[in-house]
Order: sequence, then C-alpha cells, then structure tokens
Amino acid sequence: MVKAEIISVGTELLLGQIVNTNAQFLALQMAELGIGLYFQTVVGDNEMRLMEAVHQALARADVLIITGGLGPTEDDITRETVAKAFAKDLVYVPEIEAELQRIFSGREMPANNLRQAYLPRGAVVLPNPHGTAPGLALKHHLGQLIFLLPGPPREMQPMFRNFVIPYLQEQGMLNGRVISRTLHFVGIGESKVAEVLSDLISNQSVPTIALYSKLGEVDVRLTAHTTGVAAADSLFSSVRAAILARLQPYFYGEDECTLARAVGEALGSRGHLLAVAESCTGGMIGHLITNESGSSAYFLGSLVCYANEVKTQLLGVQEATLEQFGAVSEECAREMLRGALRLKNATVGLAVTGIAGPLGGTAEKPVGTVWLAAGCRSVVKTKQLSLTGDREAIKERAARLALALLLNLLREGK
Amino acid sequence: MVKAEIISVGTELLLGQIVNTNAQFLALQMAELGIGLYFQTVVGDNEMRLMEAVHQALARADVLIITGGLGPTEDDITRETVAKAFAKDLVYVPEIEAELQRIFSGREMPANNLRQAYLPRGAVVLPNPHGTAPGLALKHHLGQLIFLLPGPPREMQPMFRNFVIPYLQEQGMLNGRVISRTLHFVGIGESKVAEVLSDLISNQSVPTIALYSKLGEVDVRLTAHTTGVAAADSLFSSVRAAILARLQPYFYGEDECTLARAVGEALGSRGHLLAVAESCTGGMIGHLITNESGSSAYFLGSLVCYANEVKTQLLGVQEATLEQFGAVSEECAREMLRGALRLKNATVGLAVTGIAGPLGGTAEKPVGTVWLAAGCRSVVKTKQLSLTGDREAIKERAARLALALLLNLLREGK
Repeated sequence: MVKAEIISVGTELLLGQIVNTNAQFLALQMAELGIGLYFQTVVGDNEMRLMEAVHQALARADVLIITGGLGPTEDDITRETVAKAFAKDLVYVPEIEAELQRIFSGREMPANNLRQAYLPRGAVVLPNPHGTAPGLALKHHLGQLIFLLPGPPREMQPMFRNFVIPYLQEQGMLNGRVISRTLHFVGIGESKVAEVLSDLISNQSVPTIALYSKLGEVDVRLTAHTTGVAAADSLFSSVRAAILARLQPYFYGEDECTLARAVGEALGSRGHLLAVAESCTGGMIGHLITNESGSSAYFLGSLVCYANEVKTQLLGVQEATLEQFGAVSEECAREMLRGALRLKNATVGLAVTGIAGPLGGTAEKPVGTVWLAAGCRSVVKTKQLSLTGDREAIKERAARLALALLLNLLREGK
Repeated sequence: MVKAEIISVGTELLLGQIVNTNAQFLALQMAELGIGLYFQTVVGDNEMRLMEAVHQALARADVLIITGGLGPTEDDITRETVAKAFAKDLVYVPEIEAELQRIFSGREMPANNLRQAYLPRGAVVLPNPHGTAPGLALKHHLGQLIFLLPGPPREMQPMFRNFVIPYLQEQGMLNGRVISRTLHFVGIGESKVAEVLSDLISNQSVPTIALYSKLGEVDVRLTAHTTGVAAADSLFSSVRAAILARLQPYFYGEDECTLARAVGEALGSRGHLLAVAESCTGGMIGHLITNESGSSAYFLGSLVCYANEVKTQLLGVQEATLEQFGAVSEECAREMLRGALRLKNATVGLAVTGIAGPLGGTAEKPVGTVWLAAGCRSVVKTKQLSLTGDREAIKERAARLALALLLNLLREGK
C-alpha cells in the first residue's frame, strides 16, 4: 500500500488560532483513494523545523503533502525550504508572474508577490484559480512524490481534487480503494460492545473492525482495502450480519444516517406525527429532530416545560402527581406524554423528565436520574435511566436515549 | 523558554473522521502559559508509530502532551506504549479499580475497563471526574515531563486545567505568564469588527489583538506576555476600554461567559421569568439557555411550535394572520410572543420564526429569512434577519441573534 504523510505549515495553526481542517480533509481523501496515511504533523513558519519534518517524512512515506506557507510574505517559507531539502535551486517561472499580473490587473501588485514566481527546479505547477499561489508537484530522486498546496481550504481543496488526484493516478499510485462502512449503535457503551464482539474483533482480518464512541452512541467501523466494490461487498456482508445479529436492539443506522434521521424515517414511513414534552433536555430533542431537513413532515413540536407550573399549565400534569411522586418520576413522565399527545393530529409522543445537574440531586434521586415515556394512548413504554457526566453530557445522553426508545417502539410495529 | 510538543493519538483522528480540536485547545493553552510549542503530531492506534513519535518528541521537547488511547479497548495503546518507551512496567493501582467500580455502581463493569487500572510505574494519577480513564503524569530521567490525557475533549480539558497546569507550576515550568482576555461580541461580522478596530489593530504592541469568528459571534482576544498579573491589568485596561467604546452595542461578556449565561445573568438580576416561542430554531434556544446551571431560576420553558396548527393551538396565533402574512412574518412573531407570555408568571418573552432551509424558501422570503420578537406586553422589539449558511448554521445564527436581541432589551432597562 502506498504510504502518505501530511505536513501542515503555519504558526497560526501550530498555536491553535485556527483548527486544522486541511488535515482532516486530506486524511479523508487519502482513505477514499486507498492510500495509507500514517503521520500528520503541524509545524510553524520556521525553516529549520519544516526541514526536519520534511526529512522525517521522506524517510518513511511515498507521498508527502504539505499545505501552507506558499503566500507572498516573508513568513511563507515552504517553497524555499523544500527546494533546500531537495538541494535544488529556485528558478524564476515567467508564466507565473504573468498570471499574477493578470490576477492583479488594474491594481498594483505588491512586490512581495513576485516571490511566488520562483519555484524549485523541476517542479510541476498546479494552477490555483482561487488565489495567487500556484501549487507544486515534485518527484524525489528516490521516487517519492511531494505536493505543495496552499493553506486556505477554498484554494487547497479544488487544487487537490482537480490536479493532485489525476497526478497520483498518472503516477500509478492509486491501486484499489479503501471501503468503509460504519454501523451506528445507541444505548450501549463501547466496552460492552467490545465484549459482545470480542471474538470477531480478535479474529478480524478483512474487513477490519474498529470501535468509536460518542455520547450515548457507539460506531462500529468496517474497513477493507480492495480492488473492486463487488469484492468488498461480499467481505462486508457476513461480518456485518454477524455484528447485527448480536447487537440488533441497539442498531439504528449506517454511515451518514444520524439517530434523528433514523427516527424521522421511522415516523415518516408510518405516517406518524410526533409531539414531544421535554424538561431537563431543555429543547435539545426538538433541536436534534429539526436538524433534519423535511422534519416538518413528521414533527409537530415540543413543549419544553422547564418549570413545574408550566408542566401543569401546558401539559396537564396534575399538581397531586408532582407533590406525591415529584417531577422526575414515571408518573410524571406518563402525564407529560399524555399532555404532548393533546396536540392536534399527534399520533405518537415522547416525554423526558430528569435531573441534569450539577444541582438538584438527592440521595433518592441523584443527578442523572431520568424518566422516559414514549407511545400513544393505547401503548406506552417507560424507562428509567441513571446517567453519568456533566450537565451537557446528561442532557445529550438523555435526548439520544429518548430518541432510541421511540425508534425501537416504532420498529416493533406500534 | 520551555519547549513543548503535542501528540494526538487515534485512528479516527488520523483518518479524518473527526477534526483535531484537542490540539487546538492545548496549543492555545501553551501560548497562554508561555510555553513554546514547536511540533504537533497525529498518529493512529499503532504502537510502533506512537513509539516513534514519542522518541522523536523526547529528543527535542521538555514537555510532551499525549491525548487519546486511554480507553478500555484493545485499540487503546497509549499506556502500554509509553511504558515501553520508558522501559517501565505497568502496575496495578487498586484505587483506580475502586473508582471505576464506583462509576459503574449498580451496573456491571465490563472486564475491559480493568485495563485502565494498570499504569506505568512511577506515574502520578490525574483524576478524571468526567470519564473512566485517569490521566497520567510521568517524569523522564532526563527531566522531561510527559502527560497522558484522555481523548474526549470534555474529559481532557478540565483535567488539563485542574491538574496539568498546577503540576507544571509546581515543576517550575511556568516562568512568566501569557495573559489573555477575550471579549465576546454578537450580531456583527469579523470583517466589520476588523474595520472598526483597524487603527488599534495596526498599531498594536502590548497587548496583541486577534480576532476569531464563530457562528454569529466574534471574539477579540488580547494577549500579553508578562511576569506579573498587575502589570498585565494596566496594559489591558486601556485597550479594552477603547475596544468597548466602539463596539458596546455588540458586547455580551468576557472569557468564560457564554451568551446564554449573559442572558441568564441579565434575567436573574432583574427578577425576570422568561418564556420562549420557537419555530425554525426547533428547541435550540431552550437548549442553549438550559445548558447553564441554575437556569430554572429565570427560565419557564419554550413552546417549540413547528407546525402552523400548533402555533395556533398552543400560542393562539390566529389562522387569519397565518393566511395573510404567513408564519415567517413580523405579525406572526408578535403573536407568538404574546402566546409565550401567557405562561403563568412570565415577565418577558422571546419568539423566533423563520426558514432554516434548504427547502421552503421563495423569491419573496428566501431561505434565511427570520423574524425575531422580544419583550413584554408593553414593550416589544422586533427584528428581521437575512441569514446565510446551511440549515444548522441558520438555526444557530437565529438562536444567537435572538438571545442577543433579548439581552440588549434587558440591558436597555426594560
């Protein structure tokens, strides 16, 4: 497999003033192209350290992509540094100066910009219609390919797609693809998933199996390097089936599918209209649902009743219930659900009440105690949760587990 | 100057599935602490390459911070790899297992999690109240400090602030500080702020002035390297005063203060109880408000009326209004506000209605058209917005600008 390395150049990047989206973009591209990425490095606008990083990379990678440092100012040292690393001269390329003059036509071109017309000898110019700095492709005498790309994403990304990919293709670097499928699970923790799948994980070969956890959710990512999509499919299907057989109750979707989208599809395909009653989640459930375009087809609204009097006024939760059982109770959740279902045309409802913390917990009902209720008048499912984490983590876990409860109810054929 | 290096461990990071916010956070922290950061590296969950990166770093840095790879699964290799790099054993620490059992109390702890109780000999444990993996601090025989921190930002960031910084202080690594103050502005764009402050920015020396933009907000960050806090204060106060004099209407708070907290303080200090009516924001406003602990002191709830019939049923928006002016109109926003104010004890309200897209726009009311209304029965302020971006960006901008409108109303002495 072709090995690649990414170096991002820029003091503002190194010092954290901006986040490194270039590295993420290039990494995803490498994965799609079937090129193995093993190191990412960030250095500042410093010739010595960039030189060190370049030499390091040339010792262990076949393809090196450097972004940043191609601008016109003195800080922009990538061209000179790479030329030195390669023991090449910088040569003046008149076509580039002509292009620069064209970009600046009608305005005075700062003298600085002339620096961008000097390139290492033998470099191939990669055009940049979105900025002044052309990119460069260089071939090392040992066969490695080096690409110098602009820092700004809106200049770098089109250059990568339009010039780097064809160049890699032409150089025979793109053999086969890496295919990835991600299975999403909710309501189960990462270590439990690892336990349930432990023999599959220990014996994995093709595809590989990797687990990633997010708040309240776990992703199982299957990856295979293959020369054809058809070959990949058969490799994936048996592993996928084995995993799903063991974790079906927690599975909600694959790849791009979010939990909110899975719920939306389950609602929409059954012609449901959802009404929600929230308390501790504060509106997050409605927010997640409405992040999906087209949610107005199945979502009526959410009554976020933060104060208990509002639970009574808007949802009809009885004062006696609040006094006897408290707002965080199965009884209150059920009454909140009934209240939500009073919205005209609502066919299914979801209610959540709990203690997000850090204040509000008691010995009997500690922070993280949450009650969920989902269903309609005839079928109601309730669930108690004991969540950990800070306030925002508890809110998010509660919201996701509530959506999961609703999803399971819908899939069970409610 | 003390030299530092950051290594971020994680295949999902290396392959671009998530963006590297940890490196950005730590880099900003290094700058504030007056520690020179020269390299950032990302490696996957691979012992050989992590070992290579660790050895590289120990050859050139005084402080090495490694994030990620401390979880319970087999992919989590940081503890073992660092122990090997240091030629140390892993030893079992019973206090950690006890803490893990406490976290899992009442539920079964997966056997995998026991791996987190084994640490390199001589390591100092850094507690993690937000997750299962404790962090570690190690001292190399040549004097370098190595910190192993969890990958998830909500676990790593508090651990860094509460344990790493004091440890660095104690080890004499923090000579002189870099003091930063951040002023937060909402409702104005970054290039406009740059224009308004252009002479201050051109002539800056101490402190330096840097602008960072977030969705709907702009941060102005003042930074000075100094040996004493008192010296810094006088340097900052005149620059701060100059900036605020020019941008006061857009200013909402400093440093840790979020927009929701500023609104909460403005409500709470005036004894107000807020009721919200949302449509396109879907619950995001309630969600932002309730992220703040103690919000039950000033927040009653939010009526998220996504369907027009629900605007009528819950908020009393007249069908005639919807027919004549449409749901996205000043008239509808006013009626939504009136409906929210019907919540018992509500003293101030906020309503938002708009088109988040990508569907739903027309020539007359394109995607991004949003109406805001804030106030009480006697004083109502409305505002029309024309927002750009995708669905989630428009929702977030609308929510933040709505909170800003409310904040200004409160501060004007409503």
